[in-house]
Amino acid sequence: MNDPVNIAITGAAGNIAYSAIFRIASGDMLGLDQPINLKLIDIEPAMNSLKGVKFELEDCAFPLINSITTTFDLNVGFEECDYALLIGAKPRMKGMERKDLLKDNGRIFKPQGKAINAVANKNIKILVVGNPANTNALIAMHNAPSINPKQFTSMMRLDHDRSLAQVANKYKTSVNEVKKVIVWGNHSNTQVPDLSYSEVCGKNIKEIINEPWYTSDFIPRVQNRGAEIIEARGLSSAASAANAAITHMRDWALGANDWLSIGQISNDNPFGISDNLMFSFPSICKNGSYEFIKNINMSEKLNDYIKVTEQELIQERDSVLDLL
Amino acid sequence: MNDPVNIAITGAAGNIAYSAIFRIASGDMLGLDQPINLKLIDIEPAMNSLKGVKFELEDCAFPLINSITTTFDLNVGFEECDYALLIGAKPRMKGMERKDLLKDNGRIFKPQGKAINAVANKNIKILVVGNPANTNALIAMHNAPSINPKQFTSMMRLDHDRSLAQVANKYKTSVNEVKKVIVWGNHSNTQVPDLSYSEVCGKNIKEIINEPWYTSDFIPRVQNRGAEIIEARGLSSAASAANAAITHMRDWALGANDWLSIGQISNDNPFGISDNLMFSFPSICKNGSYEFIKNINMSEKLNDYIKVTEQELIQERDSVLDLL
Repeated sequence: MNDPVNIAITGAAGNIAYSAIFRIASGDMLGLDQPINLKLIDIEPAMNSLKGVKFELEDCAFPLINSITTTFDLNVGFEECDYALLIGAKPRMKGMERKDLLKDNGRIFKPQGKAINAVANKNIKILVVGNPANTNALIAMHNAPSINPKQFTSMMRLDHDRSLAQVANKYKTSVNEVKKVIVWGNHSNTQVPDLSYSEVCGKNIKEIINEPWYTSDFIPRVQNRGAEIIEARGLSSAASAANAAITHMRDWALGANDWLSIGQISNDNPFGISDNLMFSFPSICKNGSYEFIKNINMSEKLNDYIKVTEQELIQERDSVLDLL
Repeated sequence: MNDPVNIAITGAAGNIAYSAIFRIASGDMLGLDQPINLKLIDIEPAMNSLKGVKFELEDCAFPLINSITTTFDLNVGFEECDYALLIGAKPRMKGMERKDLLKDNGRIFKPQGKAINAVANKNIKILVVGNPANTNALIAMHNAPSINPKQFTSMMRLDHDRSLAQVANKYKTSVNEVKKVIVWGNHSNTQVPDLSYSEVCGKNIKEIINEPWYTSDFIPRVQNRGAEIIEARGLSSAASAANAAITHMRDWALGANDWLSIGQISNDNPFGISDNLMFSFPSICKNGSYEFIKNINMSEKLNDYIKVTEQELIQERDSVLDLL
C-alpha cells in the first residue's frame, strides 16, 4: 500500500460529485493500492446534505478510505491536496446572459485558485468540470501563480468519449477499436470533434470527414449530446460526466496508450492557437504528465470550425479580464 | 479476456441503479477481465429515461461493455442471464399498510421469478435489493422452481457494512481492522447486528455486547441508519445501497476472506431458525458459492431480538402465501 493521497472535490453535495465520489473511493481513479483522504467541499448551506454523503461513504466500508473531511472552508479543503476535481459551478439560469454566467462563476473559481495557491501541494493535479469549464480553469490558474499552469486542466473527456461512442456506433464495433480521436477547443457547442487521424480496427478513416454524415450528423450530435440526454432522462448527464472526470484523472496520473483530449493552457502549442487560453488539444499521458501529440496538423477542412471555438474562448476570456 | 456474461438489473431507471450500473460497467463487480452484456429492465413508462441511461453508458466508452439492452419485457431482460440485481420495487407510501406493500411488491417479484425460471441461465446468481427484500426474494424463489433456492439471496450487506463502520468509529480504527460482524434476520428495523464473535485489530470484543453502547446506541443506529441519511441528504441512500449490491455480488462470485451477512433460504440452517424464510445468516463466500459459518452459536443475550426478526419474517410470509 502507498501512503494516502489527498483528493479535494468541490460541489461535493451535487449530482455529478455523487456519481464520482463513490467510484473514486472504490479505487476507480487511482487503483486498488492507493489509500485516500477525501476532502469534500461545498457551500455552507449544503453542509447537512454533505454530511449525508459522508455517512453513506462510511456505510460503504471502503478499504481505501483513510479519512473523510467535509468543509466549506477552501483553506481546509485544499490543504496539501494532491488532486482536485473542481465540479461545483453556478448553472446557467433561464434568461441569463453568458457574460453574467462567466462573471458569477469567476467569483467561485478565483478564490479557489487563491486557496490552491496558498495551501495545496505544488504538484497538485487539477481538473475543472464545472461550466464554463475552460474559462473557469483559466481564472483559477491565473489566481494560483505558484502552481505550474500545466497542472490546471479542463474537462474535454466527456466530449472525447462521446465521439468514440458515435464512431463505434457508426462502424458497428467496440469503442476499444476506435483510436486517435481529437476534440479541439472549448467545452461548448463550438467544440470541434476531429476524426482526421482516427483509426477504426487499425485502419485510418480520414476520408470520413468528407462524408455528409460527418458534418450533418456526427459533429452536431457530439456537440449537443448533453441536450439529448436531458431530453431522455429529464436530468443532465451526471454519471457520464463523473466517469469522464475519473478517467481524465486516472490517465493523467497513471498514463494511457491512446490519444486524449485535454483542456490545457495554450501557451507554446504547435497548432497556431493564441496563447493564454484553456484550449483542448490532442495529448498523450505518460509518467504522470501530458504533452501535445507531435507531428500532426489541424485539418484544413476543419480550420473554420476551429477558428470559431478559438474566438469564443477569446471572448470568454475578455469578459473576465478583471478576474485574471 | 473472458467471454461476456449477462447481467440483468431491474429498476434500472431508478436512483440506486443509477449509482450501481456505471460501477458495474467499469468492472467494480466482476473485475477488469470480464466483458459484460448489460440488460437494463424497468417498467414501460420508464423506457425514455432508461434510454438516457443507455446514452450515458455509451458516452462512458467503457472497455468492458459488450452490449446494452433496455427493455420492459422480462423474458428479454432475463434471457440467459448469469447475474440479476432485482432493485426495482414499489416504495411504501404514506398511510400504506405493510401488508399492502408486501402484496404490491409480490406482484412485481412473482412474474420476475417466473421469467427467471423460464429463460435465465440455471446457475444465475440473484440478489434482491428492492424492499421488503427478504420476502420479495422468497416470492421470486418460489416462482422459479427450476433454479436452486441457494441462487436467490436478499441484500443484508448494507446493514453489515453499516455495522463495520459504526464499530470502526467507536474504536477509532479503519474498517479494515474490523472482522466477523454478523447481521441476523430481516432487512428491516428488527434486524440484529451481532458483535459476539467480532474482532477489532485482531482482538475479540465479545464483551461489548454487555455494554450500554451496544443496545442503546449501536443496534438502533444501524437499524435506523437509512432514516438518518434521509434526514441529512433529503434523499434515501442510493450510492451506499448500490455499493452493497456490487460488493455482495463481487464477493459471492469471486470469494472473500471475512464473514458476510447474506439473506438466504433458511432451510437446513444450523441455528434453529424456521425453514422457508429468506433470513440473513453469517456466511463465507468461496468458489462462487456461499455457506453458513460453522461452529458458532447465536448469542443467548441476543436470542430475544432474533425471535422478533424471525417472527416478523414469518408474518411477512404468511401475508403473501397466495403468491408462493
